[in-house]
Amino acid sequence: MSDKLFPYEQLFGFTKAVFSKIGCNEDDARLATRVLLSADLRGVDSHGIARLSGYVRLWDAKRINATPDIKVIHETPSTATVDGDSGLGLVVAPKAMEIAIEKAKQVGSGWVSVQNSNHFGIAAYHSMMALEHDMIGISMTNASPLVAPTFSIERLLGTNPICVAVPAGNQPPFVADMATTTAANGKLEILQRKSGKAPLGWIQDKEGNASTDPHELKVGGALLPLGGDREHGSHKGYALGAIVDIFSAVLSGANYGPWVPPFPAYVPMPTNMPGKGVGHFFGAMRIDGFRPADEFRKHMDQWIERFRSAKTINNEGKVLVPGDPEREMEKERSVNGIPIVHAVVDDLVTLARSFDLDFTVPS
Amino acid sequence: MSDKLFPYEQLFGFTKAVFSKIGCNEDDARLATRVLLSADLRGVDSHGIARLSGYVRLWDAKRINATPDIKVIHETPSTATVDGDSGLGLVVAPKAMEIAIEKAKQVGSGWVSVQNSNHFGIAAYHSMMALEHDMIGISMTNASPLVAPTFSIERLLGTNPICVAVPAGNQPPFVADMATTTAANGKLEILQRKSGKAPLGWIQDKEGNASTDPHELKVGGALLPLGGDREHGSHKGYALGAIVDIFSAVLSGANYGPWVPPFPAYVPMPTNMPGKGVGHFFGAMRIDGFRPADEFRKHMDQWIERFRSAKTINNEGKVLVPGDPEREMEKERSVNGIPIVHAVVDDLVTLARSFDLDFTVPS
Repeated sequence: MSDKLFPYEQLFGFTKAVFSKIGCNEDDARLATRVLLSADLRGVDSHGIARLSGYVRLWDAKRINATPDIKVIHETPSTATVDGDSGLGLVVAPKAMEIAIEKAKQVGSGWVSVQNSNHFGIAAYHSMMALEHDMIGISMTNASPLVAPTFSIERLLGTNPICVAVPAGNQPPFVADMATTTAANGKLEILQRKSGKAPLGWIQDKEGNASTDPHELKVGGALLPLGGDREHGSHKGYALGAIVDIFSAVLSGANYGPWVPPFPAYVPMPTNMPGKGVGHFFGAMRIDGFRPADEFRKHMDQWIERFRSAKTINNEGKVLVPGDPEREMEKERSVNGIPIVHAVVDDLVTLARSFDLDFTVPS
Repeated sequence: MSDKLFPYEQLFGFTKAVFSKIGCNEDDARLATRVLLSADLRGVDSHGIARLSGYVRLWDAKRINATPDIKVIHETPSTATVDGDSGLGLVVAPKAMEIAIEKAKQVGSGWVSVQNSNHFGIAAYHSMMALEHDMIGISMTNASPLVAPTFSIERLLGTNPICVAVPAGNQPPFVADMATTTAANGKLEILQRKSGKAPLGWIQDKEGNASTDPHELKVGGALLPLGGDREHGSHKGYALGAIVDIFSAVLSGANYGPWVPPFPAYVPMPTNMPGKGVGHFFGAMRIDGFRPADEFRKHMDQWIERFRSAKTINNEGKVLVPGDPEREMEKERSVNGIPIVHAVVDDLVTLARSFDLDFTVPS
C-alpha cells in the first residue's frame, strides 16, 4: 500500500486552518504553515506536517502561546537577543531571522540568539530567507536531549542542526542543513517503521555499547554525535552540537543540555530548568560586506561547477553540492504532490475531526 | 630512543631568530613565534616547530613576504576583507583577528575574511585571542586539497579546520578546534612513522576504495570528510569543509577548492588560480552583545560542570569538555619542556647551520 499523495495547496489550507483554530492570527498562521510545509516539500518528512498534531498538543498543554509578544530584550548594532514569549518556533524563528537580516543591512552582519521558543521546523527555511537579500544565512537550534557526548552514557544534547545558505549567480544556492549527529532522528523513525537495523555508529545502548536496534532510544540508549566513535571523530560531532547549544541557549537565556524541553507534550518537563524554552541562533552576512556582490557570485558559481563536475568513484553518479537533493525533491513534489505515510494521514484525519475541519484523503 | 625535551624558552629564542633572519621585524618575529609554538605547547605537534623549515622554504621560493603590507581592502562596520600581502599566516591571522575584535567592540560583532595569506598555524590561537575581551572567538582556514568530497575521487578540499572559543567564569574556556575530516593529516603522519594502519573511514585509495594504508595520499588517495562514508554522514563533513572554504576564500578573493596553494614549497602551484594565496575567516562576538556578561559566565560554568560530570561508559574516565586535553598538555609542557621527534630535531639543526644560529640539543 503506497503513501497517499496530497497537493501542496490542500495541505497548506488545512494546516493554516489548524493554526488559526489554536488562535494564531492570519499572518502567523500563514507563516507557520509555510515554514512547516517547506520541510515536506524539501523531503524532510520528519519535520513537516507529521509534527502538526504534536504542535497542537503542546498548545493544549499550554506550552505554546499562539499570540506571543516576540521582542528584542538586548541588542547592539550587529547582535540581539529575542524573547519568543513561548510562541511557535515556526513563527518566532523567521521573525528573529528578519531582525538579523535588518541588522546586516545596517552594519554588514546581524546575529540573533533566541530564548523562550519551541521547535522551529527545518533550519533551511530560516537560513534561506537571507538569499534574496544577497546575504549568507545561518541558522541553528538546540533540541531535547537524545545524544550522548563521547564517553557519556547520559543524553545531554539534541540533534542540534546547523544550516548555512550561500547565494550564487547562475547556479542555485549552496544550502547545507545537517543534524550534528551521524544520522538524524527521522532516519531512525523510518527504520523503526520498517523494523530495519541501523548501521553501527548511529546509536548506542543505555550502557554505551554500539547497537543496531533503532528502538534503543526508548530504553535509555542514545544517538551518537557525527563521527560515531572517538576513533572516527565523534568528539568533533559532540563539539559541533555543543557549539549549537551554547550559541542558541547559553547566549540567549534559553534551556541548554539536558534541560531543553521535550517536543512530545506527554514527556514531563525537566526539573531545575536554567532558562526559558528552546533556544535558536541566526546569522546574516551581506556578501557585499566582503567584496562586490557580482564578483562573489561569479566565484561561487565557479566553486559549485568545479565540485559538481568532479570525477566520481567508478564514474558513477555525481558529486552533489549541498542543497541539490532537497531542491530536486521540492521541484518534484511541487508538481506531483506530497506523499504522506498512513499513520500520519490517520493522525491528520483525527485532528480535522477534533477541530471540525475538512480533510479529504485522495482515493 | 625517546624524543628529546626542549625548554619552551630555547625554542622561542631559536624560532624568533629564524623569523628575524628571513626579514621579519622584531614584533612580527615575536608574534609568529608565539603563534607557531602555541601548537607545540598544546600538543598539536604537526602544526608547530615541525613546520618551521617549511615556512623558510616557502620564503626561499618567494611565496612568503616577510615584510607584508597587511590591509583592509573592503569593509562595513561589522565586516571586512583583509589582504595579507603574501605574509606569514602566523602574522596575518592574528592581525585580522584583532580587526574582528575591534569591530566587535564597536558594533557587537566583527567578521573578517582574509585573502593572500599562508598557513596560519593552529586555529585555536586566533579564536582564543577573543577570550580576554569577553568575546566568543571563531577562526577557520582553507588549506591545500587532500580531502575527497563524498562520492569523489578527486581531492578538492583541505582539512579545513574550524575553531570556536567561548569564555566561561570560574571554569576554563570551551575551545573546540577541529579539522573537518575524520582524522587530521598529522595523525596520518604519526602512523606513517610507526608503519601503523589507519582505521577504516579515515582514507580512501585513488579509486575511492576504503583503505588502511597511511601512505595512500602519496599515490593519489585522499583523506575523508568527518563521517567517513555516506552512511555515516560524510556528506556533513564535506559540507563543513565546504563552508570553511567558501567563508575563507570565496568571500575574500583567495584561492578555493583544488586551487589552494600547497604548503610544501616543492609542490608546483596549481594552474588557473582564481584568487590570491590561502584564505582564512575570523569572527568575534561580544557576550554582552546578547546578555549581561556575568549571567553568561554563570550559565557557561553550569554548562561545563554538567557535561564534565556526566555518567561515563563503565564508569571509566570522564566526559571531556572541548579544550580540556590541550590545556592539560600546555600546563605539562610549560613545566617539563616540549618533546621533539628526532627527524624534526635534525631538521632544526640543519636550519640552524644554514642561518649560522646556535641550536643546542639537550643530551
